[in-house]
Amino acid sequence: MKWENIDTQVCSVARALAIVGERWTLLIIRDAFKGTRRFDDFYKNLGVTRHRLAERLGGLVEAGVMTRVPYCDRPLRYEYRLTRMGLGLYPVLMTLGDWGDRWLDKGQGPPTEYWHARCGKITAPILSCRECGDPLRPEEVSARPGALLKAFSRSLSEQGVAVPPEAALPAAAADFARQWGVEDNEVNS
Amino acid sequence: MKWENIDTQVCSVARALAIVGERWTLLIIRDAFKGTRRFDDFYKNLGVTRHRLAERLGGLVEAGVMTRVPYCDRPLRYEYRLTRMGLGLYPVLMTLGDWGDRWLDKGQGPPTEYWHARCGKITAPILSCRECGDPLRPEEVSARPGALLKAFSRSLSEQGVAVPPEAALPAAAADFARQWGVEDNEVNS
Repeated sequence: MKWENIDTQVCSVARALAIVGERWTLLIIRDAFKGTRRFDDFYKNLGVTRHRLAERLGGLVEAGVMTRVPYCDRPLRYEYRLTRMGLGLYPVLMTLGDWGDRWLDKGQGPPTEYWHARCGKITAPILSCRECGDPLRPEEVSARPGALLKAFSRSLSEQGVAVPPEAALPAAAADFARQWGVEDNEVNS
Repeated sequence: MKWENIDTQVCSVARALAIVGERWTLLIIRDAFKGTRRFDDFYKNLGVTRHRLAERLGGLVEAGVMTRVPYCDRPLRYEYRLTRMGLGLYPVLMTLGDWGDRWLDKGQGPPTEYWHARCGKITAPILSCRECGDPLRPEEVSARPGALLKAFSRSLSEQGVAVPPEAALPAAAADFARQWGVEDNEVNS
């Protein structure tokens, strides 16, 4: 599989990385969360080439993560803003930053502190369960095939193909798609 | 700034991306969380080239995210396991996957469901405040310079340089480092 095709994996992490997994992309989004809006400001903050920056911003607009809004009529000028979809990446940025704070601070403490207006304290993010509110720990969470993979499993059975155990289904779906050159939306139709 | 130097930014997101921001890296870590340990299994699951896979695994071992453990004496064979630092990336993977579930499911529902053993329910991750437990929302969180950026700010003042407002400090620190070619550990010494 080529990187360009990872969004065909029946996996939300792969699909997310197909949009935000390129070099610079998450740094552009980080800057957008800090209030950067204009091309020249992204350019100045990041130090990426103008060509690469234009390509990345264009990709984010196309994917629906950012939107281009005119801020000046003559000459016509645009700024880039996060959409609701883009704002949804806040937890990704915060957990990445928290991991950097914990493991890569070189013993000098976190570069940035986060102040939570709701409780008035310096905070750090915790990943919690939507249902019970307790912290989500990898050893207490197990992955199960969702509706999409269950449908895929049924379609395999109907074709007389041996169905792999549930835990192996995501990998099997990727194998299947790769082997037969099908898109995942075909697999499940 | 070149991508290879983004870890010199006084920013934990940039430092984290210097380690996990390359193509394939987070997919390798995703597979490791699903139980993949051996080179050939990563290779089979991902479909990345062997050369690229070896390079990425080597980088993750060097960074301390994974460790190489012998599983066979003759011939000597190694498997790759997440370290505690690597396990710390769980929230990053979960929030990326959750974003994919919400925005990229193509109307077919999430490929994978997550079952939380602690409460016995299908769950999704919420980003919560370490202090009050409420959800962390971008509009309720403000970034402030931490110890590292405060020290940087002091060093600027002592050199007679006008200190930018607190909110602009991270960008200013990056500018400063770029402009003067200093490493951030020098800035703060």
